[in-house]
Amino acid sequence: MYTKPAFNAAVPLGRPTTLPLSRCSSRPTLQASASQPPSSESPSSSIRRPIGRTIPLIKPASSPTTSSDAVDVPVEPRYLYSFRPGHSDATHPTAALLGGKGCALATMSQMSLPVPPGFILSTSLCARLTSSSSSNSSSTTATPILFPDSLTSQIETALAALSDSVGRVFGSATNPLLLSVRSGAPVSMPGMMDTVLNLGLNDKTVEALAKQTDNAIFAYDSYRRFLSMYANVVLSLPNALFEKSLSDMKSQYDCATDADLPLKALKQLVNKFKHHILSETGIPFEQDVFVQLRNTIAAVFQSWQNPRAQTYRAINHIPMSLGTAVVVQAMVFGNSGPTSATGVFFSRDPSTGVNKLYGEFLTNAQGEDVVAGIRTPQPIVRVTNVEGLSKKNSMQEVMPDVYKQVVDVSNLLEQHFKDVQDVEFTVEKGTLYILQTRAAKRTALAAVRSAVEMEGEGLISKDEALKRVDPKSLRQLLHPTLDSDVERDVVATGLPASPGAASGVVALSCNSAEFFAQQGLDVILCREETSPEDVAGMHISKGIVTARGGMTSHAAVVARGMGRACITGVSSMTIDEEKGVVKLDENVSVKEGDCVTIDGATGQVMLGKLETKPAQMCEEFKTLMQWADQRRDMTVLANAETPEDVRRALSLGAEGVGLCRTEHMFFDADRIVAVRQMILAEDNEVRTDALNKLLPMQRQDFTEILEVMQGRPVTIRLLDPPLHEFLPHEQHEFEAVARSAGVSVDVLKARADASREANPMLGLRGCRVGIVYPEIYRMQTQAIVLAAVDVARKSDKVVCVHVMVPFVSSVDELEIVRREIDNVASTILSSSENEEVAHLVQYTVGTMIELPRAALTAGEIARQASFFSFGTNDLTQTTLGMSRDDAGSFLQNYLKSGVIDRDPFVSLDIEGVGMLVELAAKEGRKTRKDLKLCLCGEQGADKDTVVFAQKIGLDAVSCSPFFVPVARLAAAQAAIVQQEIRDDATSGGASTGSM
Amino acid sequence: MYTKPAFNAAVPLGRPTTLPLSRCSSRPTLQASASQPPSSESPSSSIRRPIGRTIPLIKPASSPTTSSDAVDVPVEPRYLYSFRPGHSDATHPTAALLGGKGCALATMSQMSLPVPPGFILSTSLCARLTSSSSSNSSSTTATPILFPDSLTSQIETALAALSDSVGRVFGSATNPLLLSVRSGAPVSMPGMMDTVLNLGLNDKTVEALAKQTDNAIFAYDSYRRFLSMYANVVLSLPNALFEKSLSDMKSQYDCATDADLPLKALKQLVNKFKHHILSETGIPFEQDVFVQLRNTIAAVFQSWQNPRAQTYRAINHIPMSLGTAVVVQAMVFGNSGPTSATGVFFSRDPSTGVNKLYGEFLTNAQGEDVVAGIRTPQPIVRVTNVEGLSKKNSMQEVMPDVYKQVVDVSNLLEQHFKDVQDVEFTVEKGTLYILQTRAAKRTALAAVRSAVEMEGEGLISKDEALKRVDPKSLRQLLHPTLDSDVERDVVATGLPASPGAASGVVALSCNSAEFFAQQGLDVILCREETSPEDVAGMHISKGIVTARGGMTSHAAVVARGMGRACITGVSSMTIDEEKGVVKLDENVSVKEGDCVTIDGATGQVMLGKLETKPAQMCEEFKTLMQWADQRRDMTVLANAETPEDVRRALSLGAEGVGLCRTEHMFFDADRIVAVRQMILAEDNEVRTDALNKLLPMQRQDFTEILEVMQGRPVTIRLLDPPLHEFLPHEQHEFEAVARSAGVSVDVLKARADASREANPMLGLRGCRVGIVYPEIYRMQTQAIVLAAVDVARKSDKVVCVHVMVPFVSSVDELEIVRREIDNVASTILSSSENEEVAHLVQYTVGTMIELPRAALTAGEIARQASFFSFGTNDLTQTTLGMSRDDAGSFLQNYLKSGVIDRDPFVSLDIEGVGMLVELAAKEGRKTRKDLKLCLCGEQGADKDTVVFAQKIGLDAVSCSPFFVPVARLAAAQAAIVQQEIRDDATSGGASTGSM
Repeated sequence: MYTKPAFNAAVPLGRPTTLPLSRCSSRPTLQASASQPPSSESPSSSIRRPIGRTIPLIKPASSPTTSSDAVDVPVEPRYLYSFRPGHSDATHPTAALLGGKGCALATMSQMSLPVPPGFILSTSLCARLTSSSSSNSSSTTATPILFPDSLTSQIETALAALSDSVGRVFGSATNPLLLSVRSGAPVSMPGMMDTVLNLGLNDKTVEALAKQTDNAIFAYDSYRRFLSMYANVVLSLPNALFEKSLSDMKSQYDCATDADLPLKALKQLVNKFKHHILSETGIPFEQDVFVQLRNTIAAVFQSWQNPRAQTYRAINHIPMSLGTAVVVQAMVFGNSGPTSATGVFFSRDPSTGVNKLYGEFLTNAQGEDVVAGIRTPQPIVRVTNVEGLSKKNSMQEVMPDVYKQVVDVSNLLEQHFKDVQDVEFTVEKGTLYILQTRAAKRTALAAVRSAVEMEGEGLISKDEALKRVDPKSLRQLLHPTLDSDVERDVVATGLPASPGAASGVVALSCNSAEFFAQQGLDVILCREETSPEDVAGMHISKGIVTARGGMTSHAAVVARGMGRACITGVSSMTIDEEKGVVKLDENVSVKEGDCVTIDGATGQVMLGKLETKPAQMCEEFKTLMQWADQRRDMTVLANAETPEDVRRALSLGAEGVGLCRTEHMFFDADRIVAVRQMILAEDNEVRTDALNKLLPMQRQDFTEILEVMQGRPVTIRLLDPPLHEFLPHEQHEFEAVARSAGVSVDVLKARADASREANPMLGLRGCRVGIVYPEIYRMQTQAIVLAAVDVARKSDKVVCVHVMVPFVSSVDELEIVRREIDNVASTILSSSENEEVAHLVQYTVGTMIELPRAALTAGEIARQASFFSFGTNDLTQTTLGMSRDDAGSFLQNYLKSGVIDRDPFVSLDIEGVGMLVELAAKEGRKTRKDLKLCLCGEQGADKDTVVFAQKIGLDAVSCSPFFVPVARLAAAQAAIVQQEIRDDATSGGASTGSM
Repeated sequence: MYTKPAFNAAVPLGRPTTLPLSRCSSRPTLQASASQPPSSESPSSSIRRPIGRTIPLIKPASSPTTSSDAVDVPVEPRYLYSFRPGHSDATHPTAALLGGKGCALATMSQMSLPVPPGFILSTSLCARLTSSSSSNSSSTTATPILFPDSLTSQIETALAALSDSVGRVFGSATNPLLLSVRSGAPVSMPGMMDTVLNLGLNDKTVEALAKQTDNAIFAYDSYRRFLSMYANVVLSLPNALFEKSLSDMKSQYDCATDADLPLKALKQLVNKFKHHILSETGIPFEQDVFVQLRNTIAAVFQSWQNPRAQTYRAINHIPMSLGTAVVVQAMVFGNSGPTSATGVFFSRDPSTGVNKLYGEFLTNAQGEDVVAGIRTPQPIVRVTNVEGLSKKNSMQEVMPDVYKQVVDVSNLLEQHFKDVQDVEFTVEKGTLYILQTRAAKRTALAAVRSAVEMEGEGLISKDEALKRVDPKSLRQLLHPTLDSDVERDVVATGLPASPGAASGVVALSCNSAEFFAQQGLDVILCREETSPEDVAGMHISKGIVTARGGMTSHAAVVARGMGRACITGVSSMTIDEEKGVVKLDENVSVKEGDCVTIDGATGQVMLGKLETKPAQMCEEFKTLMQWADQRRDMTVLANAETPEDVRRALSLGAEGVGLCRTEHMFFDADRIVAVRQMILAEDNEVRTDALNKLLPMQRQDFTEILEVMQGRPVTIRLLDPPLHEFLPHEQHEFEAVARSAGVSVDVLKARADASREANPMLGLRGCRVGIVYPEIYRMQTQAIVLAAVDVARKSDKVVCVHVMVPFVSSVDELEIVRREIDNVASTILSSSENEEVAHLVQYTVGTMIELPRAALTAGEIARQASFFSFGTNDLTQTTLGMSRDDAGSFLQNYLKSGVIDRDPFVSLDIEGVGMLVELAAKEGRKTRKDLKLCLCGEQGADKDTVVFAQKIGLDAVSCSPFFVPVARLAAAQAAIVQQEIRDDATSGGASTGSM
């Protein structure tokens, strides 16, 4: 029997490296095989021919990676799962194994829906067939891809079955079977990876297709499409080359659309395309359909590693390790005449959630045409008198029978998947084929509405409705957004750091922001990066744009906390504060006072003022939130420090304040001088003088917050950040402090210099300040307890304050500080004037667990703490040795190359940081059974983090006010997840028990 | 029965607060009791009178600390242990319970040696009777001390027994018993705490004493001594007040010494002293001897918290929690005539270790007189013709009988304690009393010599000899030191960062250091602080002084590594580099080029050139080191990167290089430009160009080191520090890089600005650099493997290199870097030109565990690592959230106030950081049984750290070359400690088993 080595020969993939694939296929063995015609025309005999064996081109011994990989991975017998209507090899299809597309196709096959038959190459192959090192831009050699032997034989068998099922033969010169080869990851990544359609065409099969369909135009149109796709996906040639030839041809023949091209033109085009391939790669277009298939499968797997896909995964926290599956299916043709069509429909409106089928289609077209937007598609449902909408005839009118089938399929799919479906279909000569179905991407509004309505329809339970909405997406409902109809002329792009849209005049400093705001103008503050000193300026601005920093930079965190739109890391932006000019991009500059619009949800900056629409809070949202509150176990608190923030938190459902950062109150213009005097004091007297000025201000702050919260718990953190953050910089600032403190500017400058730190994050901060300068915490405690007394007296109701000591690394530190706090508190509460209200003041002392050592010794620390609050920002910084402010230089690189799956400042690093949190929770509770545990870092509203918090038994999470609804929903989902795990364990345990 | 409330009333102690004790004793109850005469004169009846009950002056409820203390501490029945020759209440005395002094007295009592009888108040009382909060300078109120009831009754009983034993009655107006009250901590802290002698004297008992001894001068001399001691220790009055009166009186009566004062003068002095007490405190001197005793006991306990004691503990790593005991003993009088004396002897010479009794005494004097140095003491052993020594008559000549007893006691004590003893004694009218014995403080030389000789004498085993020498002290033997006879005029003091003495001219920059060095001058480099750029300048200097930084700052670490004398944290020093002037102190300035001398062992800076003596390496040292090498289990490696350092490490016994920091080679003048070009490169081409320049240099570095080590293992760490450490600062530096890289200075400056980091310790460094710019590690690996090949070829012997990847936080990082290293290595080793030597190159890849996350996920990381090296510097920084460079601002405060016991950068924080190391070792070995484990932080030669390393089964420690002997001895001690624990466990297990 003839052995054909080419199919499975190791061929380095060109993209994304510079070495063209064809260099390798020019090796004699490949060339020889390429010119070898198929040995037989009958379906079964052609398939039974062995396709090839592994011929490694690089000796494994010389490359440790390759060799160890080859040794390590155990032999997996099954890579391939076939399907056809009424049958699926995979009896319990999962997206993890088959990818989302493959899983849906297998399921629809089981439902006997009309899917074109095919087979799925599982995700477990992806890691084997791709090489992550090729994603590294520095790599200069292509890595070959080896097909395991068992894969080759599985493909042979599946092709045989497919041929039998369709009644066509792959590569046949009389009755050719054409294939589509599509990627399909376990998580939807639309458009990120590659697809090749019409595979199996060559100079002979195209003729057979023409003859068989009696439609040469269709055959050559398919061929030219295949040629350009293959050239792009497999050979890495630029699309533009083929598009230009196509448009040239249309001009030459004076055709309006692709479909108008005559046969002659299409044939010329086919020759032109083949010429491009030869001249660009040095090798003629591959005529052997088996080599076509092998190379295409490899290329589609490899597209998992393309830069687009990497970026998408980084942004969407999709682990690289998931891998993609590849779906190989018999082609059906929406472009085979006027009774053929291709299109997409949604089982409900993905924009509003309204329960009404919504979709578009194009007659006589292939899938790519809909996406490409060359022709305007027709609606599926008849349009009734809506102005401005297409007057084209709907499918309801044009293909009433198919329309009825579509409606039936839509209902069946929704009933089966119990979710809004996004369905791709093709109509071939009046016959409907479903190519793909998946849960529809939808706006937060649509997600909420459809989930609540489906519960009403009895389709899903409340738990399922709660699980249906991505908590994160709720933020969309809380911020004004840009009207999606408005055209955007984007001049710069950065990271979508805080959602919401805002228009305003550009200000380059807090001073000018204030100046514009005083004139009643909305302001967009543009800064290189922000620091705590900019907080006031950020507060009066509608939006913030920074050139540096990431999704969790100072600007991003503060903006999200304040609910300001924010874009960070606009690397194209350079600011000349002196000239008052900001260059948004190479060619676009604006001056202070010019108007721009930013969309914090997309990271886009646009010139001029664009219309925004206010936040939408529909009835369904309120219903869902009620369900969430009933369902969740954990308390949801807010990180807030101004009365305004606290009020907002309350209105968004916060049950208390989990983190009130006292230092955020220190930057007000009327306070900063006293704060600076306090820091730079060289003796207790000057420091005490400064503290005496601050005491009434802090007392007033706390009074307002406690009043707003009406007895709900308020956790107040004592001064935490490095003192140097408050230091003066400008001469006039030094002068103001010098006047206030009664010392010379030179002395102050020397003291400011002396307090400079190499790594302020790890320096004199938190309780270290409280121990070295006990006056400071004493003043803050006085302010807190006096405020509590004031509010208790006024309201005659219980006031509940928790005093939190930050940056503790040992129980001894906490003990010292707690003793001072207790002393101050008991002195105030036992004084005769406060005697009658003292019983209304409930106060406790606890600590932040934000250092690894605190977590490791939590059992000891719990002896002195009534509660732990996990400060996961700092805990992440220290556990990973990664400064949030400096991570930008490598974190993006890490995310893209898959070194890490998620930004650990956005979603808790459960393996590392989470281990410490879990340990601390356990050891803390061992010491103190009723220890209250809260997580209050930026990750407090992240769903996976909340699920983890629920799992390890935390009592509460705390997050920015605008994230409170997010956390409420996430907490409900966490409770559901936990119950599901418990239920699984119970049933699993029961079955184990019965064994 | 009459109840006397005063003795046990709560009395706040004045020192170190400003509230005089007497304010409290002016309360009516105390006053009344003070004027109450003892109700009986017979020993037993006076004692059986209950001394008092607790009368708290502050309501516990108003002070949470006090109240919770009062509730929490369980009743301890036994606080007091009596002793007299032939008897000790404590049958197995321990220093932990009785303090060192008390333990020795109890033991000597058991040995029937002549000790004055008395009793010991145990260390367990210390924490109860002292208040650490009073050590906090901010405290404004004194904390009262409460005697537990059971203590009062135990003292009563003991006083009765003591009276019976001595035949005198405490407070008797006819036959008074006088007491000494002395502190005694479990660890020797000579002179740090307080002592009161002659307690029990008042206006009546002094007369009785005079009458009974027929020596009024002696009685009043004792009384004036007691008055001044009591005033100072109990009432916190300054000594100077009393000393001035004494010297005035001597002038008035024209007396040369105190002993010459006539009775009249002494009586005047007593009146004067009582007047001082009344006028300074407002209250007359306390006549009630029981109140005297109570207050004195409280004050001596409280002296555990005095600033001197706190500082001593901080420097010597003595935990505050140990507490002191208090020894109350019947007085014996060395000042009762010419046949009386007081003195000190050592069983061997504490300076040289020579086995010969050595000591001094004074006739007719009390202990304080010897210490005060008012009279020149006489030698105990006859002096034979040694020029310049005292011609005074020795004890051997003056008191031959006593001398014989002294020699006998010395021998008995050495036989019993099996160590060199430091003994205090008093001779009262020809009778010898031993007041105290303890292990003698000795020089390193003496310690080594006596230990080795005692083994030879059969007194101790080799293990005991090894345990007898403090590993740390060995450093004294390795550095030149100042002659101890030379007078020092200290002008500034800092932290003793690196031992050794050095004289030289002051240089304020590396440039001027180089300038002076070229002229053949020795240089002392004075800097605000040092950075890696100063390394070259430090290398050519003899000593380094910095104004900032601690014992483990950059300057300290590098200086110790190079064996340079170094003083850090000279806070009084200010440098004006422009003017070339350094102000060492308020009043002392020196110019560049002026000569100074520094003593790195004491932290002292002196003007001018002082004589130094070279390092001493005696035979006994070599013997001890041999024993240590035989005894230890762990390998001792060195942290070294220059051939010079590596050679030194080898000569000091290192078995390999545990940490070769490649970046230390980057600062040479001929390399830094290329390094900077590499860092600031904006594309691969420029970076590759720079790397090509560096490759041959690094290859040469590694070749030399591998040649020196002759096949011993060398662990080379790839580039670790934040890149910005290498950035240029000066214009000419930028220009040099611009020329080299072919880009403009402005572009370079912009790139340098962009790479600035907020917390560089947590930024782009270690393997992050290696992943973002893989070319850099690739170059370093090439250099390493090429060097190994070179050396293997030349020597025809095995070369053993371990490549270490720094700052790994996840196994994925390590996997990526390891793959690159393996690729580079196998390419070089499999090339045809290297084929024949490749088998001689043993190379492995491992990682540093220096981040909490790495430790937490060590089980995973071990999959990719052949070895772990614990980088405990960084691991401490991140686990504690404490930047080594910035800790100075609070670490000293923490050590002094007992928040922490030790500098965690000097001795591993076993509770926190150690937990991570242990976890990582365990999990790592679970994954890979033969995983090699090494500890290579600065703590690698610290004894407790080494003991811990042995306990958890590490294979090796690595430290600076000069610390290698320290680590060798520490490792031997660790092996001994472990065996002792194992033996204890075995015997303990056996006894448990038999129960």
